[in-house]
Amino acid sequence: MALPRLLVVGVGLIGGSFALALKRAGIVGEVAGLGRDGSVLQEAMKLGVIDRSVANIREGLMGANVVMVATPVRQMQTVFLSMRDALPSDCVVTDAGSTKQDVIAAARTGLGSRAGQFIPAHPIAGREQSGVAAAEAALFHQRQVVLTPTADNDAEDVERIAGLWRACGARVSSMSALQHDAVFAAVSHLPHMLAYALVEELAARDNADELLDFAAGGFRDFTRIASSSPEMWRDIALNNRDALLREIDSYALQLANLRALIERSDGPALEALMARARDSRDAWLDRFNAGAKVTKE
Amino acid sequence: MALPRLLVVGVGLIGGSFALALKRAGIVGEVAGLGRDGSVLQEAMKLGVIDRSVANIREGLMGANVVMVATPVRQMQTVFLSMRDALPSDCVVTDAGSTKQDVIAAARTGLGSRAGQFIPAHPIAGREQSGVAAAEAALFHQRQVVLTPTADNDAEDVERIAGLWRACGARVSSMSALQHDAVFAAVSHLPHMLAYALVEELAARDNADELLDFAAGGFRDFTRIASSSPEMWRDIALNNRDALLREIDSYALQLANLRALIERSDGPALEALMARARDSRDAWLDRFNAGAKVTKE
Repeated sequence: MALPRLLVVGVGLIGGSFALALKRAGIVGEVAGLGRDGSVLQEAMKLGVIDRSVANIREGLMGANVVMVATPVRQMQTVFLSMRDALPSDCVVTDAGSTKQDVIAAARTGLGSRAGQFIPAHPIAGREQSGVAAAEAALFHQRQVVLTPTADNDAEDVERIAGLWRACGARVSSMSALQHDAVFAAVSHLPHMLAYALVEELAARDNADELLDFAAGGFRDFTRIASSSPEMWRDIALNNRDALLREIDSYALQLANLRALIERSDGPALEALMARARDSRDAWLDRFNAGAKVTKE
Repeated sequence: MALPRLLVVGVGLIGGSFALALKRAGIVGEVAGLGRDGSVLQEAMKLGVIDRSVANIREGLMGANVVMVATPVRQMQTVFLSMRDALPSDCVVTDAGSTKQDVIAAARTGLGSRAGQFIPAHPIAGREQSGVAAAEAALFHQRQVVLTPTADNDAEDVERIAGLWRACGARVSSMSALQHDAVFAAVSHLPHMLAYALVEELAARDNADELLDFAAGGFRDFTRIASSSPEMWRDIALNNRDALLREIDSYALQLANLRALIERSDGPALEALMARARDSRDAWLDRFNAGAKVTKE
């Protein structure tokens, strides 16, 4: 058994799916779960996501080979701190947070001299449902996982975590935490904020019901990510604040540019902008779909 | 045969699907098609969307009972003008434009004293594909169609057009053109602009390929509407300019509000905003899905 004992801290969509995927791959012995809500752990046991629940981190770390921290990112420092004195020296800790510089800093503060045992990772497999009931073994199949190892990490530990993700069916790559946070501020965190802002804007109006009665498929897809977990996305927004603020500012300028074309009725420039956007998006979608297919075959 | 002869001007996704739906309902005799591109009309005939192509509007109007104008909205005034002298007095003209005040104005200018024969309509059944190859008989099934009749319209003509849309499987409602344009600026035109702006912003960067390599399902759905027809959406943006500029301005304020919460790290307010948006969107989605189901049964 490649991984005799796994501890999952935060047994929700991501932590639960990681456990299920490793179980399906047949490479994990026992999965223990720790969480703030006992009823969630009960549910996770009923669903076969974890094999037992532990009462505290000390019990969970006993004999654990790998710890997956899959809480909202703002809770991670407390989790790391609680581990510090009981972390076995051969145990590798990893996470599934959507931001990485902040989590690395939390690990340094929380784990202290043990921070090198923490391998930062981000599986790109969000969906708007959250909670362990939504967990599934195939969640990471054909998805990307980005590792952002630090100078303190052992190459062997990094490879161990990469191997677990590959066993879940994911494609693994790595980059610096700084680069990671800049990339995801643009392609993920910004669109989430834009979707939340649109729903907030329309739903707060006196005639919201009338308006939304005529919203259709375009609105549904555009706002899908506004159904994501508020707790998780609050943490991401706050913890990747600087990069996200830069993205919001760039976007606001771009929107002002588009607005100016409409205001001065500049049809040719407006159509050219829309055609560029459509062509870029269509070309991206072809690559995205091809990537998924290549991995499947 | 309820409708012996239909003329479709602009045989694309919407005009073509309207013809196919009426054919499937068995209520149309012959469908004639007129368009600026002969090869499209050839394709439409091969696909069975139209029965014959006509060389000009005069030929198309001969014996026509209903004319569907399904061109981009900025071409409609020219189309109406070309009809003026040859429009049979018992022929009803309708359209499928996404904006209504501008199309009504175009009909008044183009059709002159015959403007009362024009029943303005907007089927809410867009998708990102365009062109006659994407046309299908089921496109309007369970979808909404909004009529915005004017004081010049005969109630009988309005009911005739409503009946055709019902035969296509659509739910028909009506409101004023002013109200229509305000509602759709908010729930449809604004999100399209927001999606175009995001893709334009990211795709123009030096590191666009690297960024987009990590874009995933959230980005795909958020930007789906940025793959829509640039010609069609240029016209909508320009023709519903005032309402759309107001929506862009409201949205920019809302985004600035969200930005301020992030900048001052106001976690509780940020989470509250996201939770409100999620709850509103989830409640809307339930109604949207229920509406679709009710119609299906």
